Amino acid sequence: MRVKLTVAYDGTNYHGWQIQNNALSVEAVLVGALRELLGEEIELTGASRTDAGVHALGNVAVFDTNTRIPAEKIALAVNQRLPEDIRVMRSEEVPRSFHPRYCNSRKTYEYWITNAEIQQPVKRLYSHFVYIPLNVERMKETAQYFLGEHDFGAFCSAGSQVRSKVRSIYDLQIFQEGEDIRIQITGNGFLYNMVRIIAGTLIEIGMGRREPETVRQALRHADRDMAGPTAPARGLRLLQIEYEENRQEFGDDH
Amino acid sequence: MRVKLTVAYDGTNYHGWQIQNNALSVEAVLVGALRELLGEEIELTGASRTDAGVHALGNVAVFDTNTRIPAEKIALAVNQRLPEDIRVMRSEEVPRSFHPRYCNSRKTYEYWITNAEIQQPVKRLYSHFVYIPLNVERMKETAQYFLGEHDFGAFCSAGSQVRSKVRSIYDLQIFQEGEDIRIQITGNGFLYNMVRIIAGTLIEIGMGRREPETVRQALRHADRDMAGPTAPARGLRLLQIEYEENRQEFGDDH
Repeated sequence: MRVKLTVAYDGTNYHGWQIQNNALSVEAVLVGALRELLGEEIELTGASRTDAGVHALGNVAVFDTNTRIPAEKIALAVNQRLPEDIRVMRSEEVPRSFHPRYCNSRKTYEYWITNAEIQQPVKRLYSHFVYIPLNVERMKETAQYFLGEHDFGAFCSAGSQVRSKVRSIYDLQIFQEGEDIRIQITGNGFLYNMVRIIAGTLIEIGMGRREPETVRQALRHADRDMAGPTAPARGLRLLQIEYEENRQEFGDDH
Repeated sequence: MRVKLTVAYDGTNYHGWQIQNNALSVEAVLVGALRELLGEEIELTGASRTDAGVHALGNVAVFDTNTRIPAEKIALAVNQRLPEDIRVMRSEEVPRSFHPRYCNSRKTYEYWITNAEIQQPVKRLYSHFVYIPLNVERMKETAQYFLGEHDFGAFCSAGSQVRSKVRSIYDLQIFQEGEDIRIQITGNGFLYNMVRIIAGTLIEIGMGRREPETVRQALRHADRDMAGPTAPARGLRLLQIEYEENRQEFGDDH
């Protein structure tokens, strides 16, 4: 059977999702725990190859197995063999045709910012600290420019090998509670570092260092140099991935 | 002059506030940074000797210094020499008569609980994970018994050397937001492990393992065996300490 896992992790101590030589990845640890539990070779396919230091509440991965353990029992069983900073939140059987990257999906990310003179240490691992006061209203006004279908070439780091940089943003909201600012963004797919570059650009706009209008220009020209910097990984968390019925190939490498 | 510091820290990597042999403490790191900055010997007096793993948003400490650096500039200057998990949030001059433990004060602590089937890894360092469903209404009903002046001998770990175990709780509220439960408690002083034993007792009441009435009995008999277990340190955070005008000696060792 094919099993779909919903995976949460604290990215602080990992060099991202994907297995690589000489660096600890979430995927490698998860594959190791699954092999141990199921006693067979496991090939895992992740939906989102999050970068070093990025957190997840609901990344998705699938694998095929011959086990007789019911799919929904795998989550609790594999958690016994995982370190505390990785947790399988849910496991379920899916059709053999289900592929987490080639299915229509809506992904939601959040970018967390602490805007204060000094950052509370208990927030430091999960929130980017900005001491220059941010004009959140200005950031909210700018958010609208990202909505809809655009070529996001200006909001994509070098090294991406995707065919097309056209993506759709369905929703981009900014929430403020005292010193805590949360950028929540939902789309059909995200390019390499796309959310972090959008966050870095919105932060510069909030600081008054950049005009909202520059976002429209950056989108029009698809020029990386016209967008802001890549905001740090620790502020980013993948919230959830929702799948629709129709399948269609994307090719994200975010 | 005498300088009052408001100190925040992530307690995860420290063996508590107080300087001790062969273990890293918040106080030792802070004293080292102050000595380096001010070029003189520093003797620090903390308000609350938090235990290993306990967090703080607003602990208080004072020291005397001959420096010419204005008191309010010390916070930012010393933060340059501190690791990211300790931050001085504020520094200010206080009268020589000010002593953080012998002054009338109101301390507020919070105890954080995640009540879910599986805990999100990003919450694990700052919240105690309880997978048995908690009846929060039952916990709220019980909270009233703690209010007012009591002998809290039942809610104090062995090893305490205070003269009197009588303390006053001014406020005890329990907030719930989805799977997140927060116990907020304000009093004039807290005995060793007192908040963690109150939290551990309330959790057992929420689980249905203990009757609310047992809290009244435990308070009446001041018998440690009649209260619940000490909840883990990671869920506890010292929020703030407010000082009043009149001085009066306490002698907490929490």
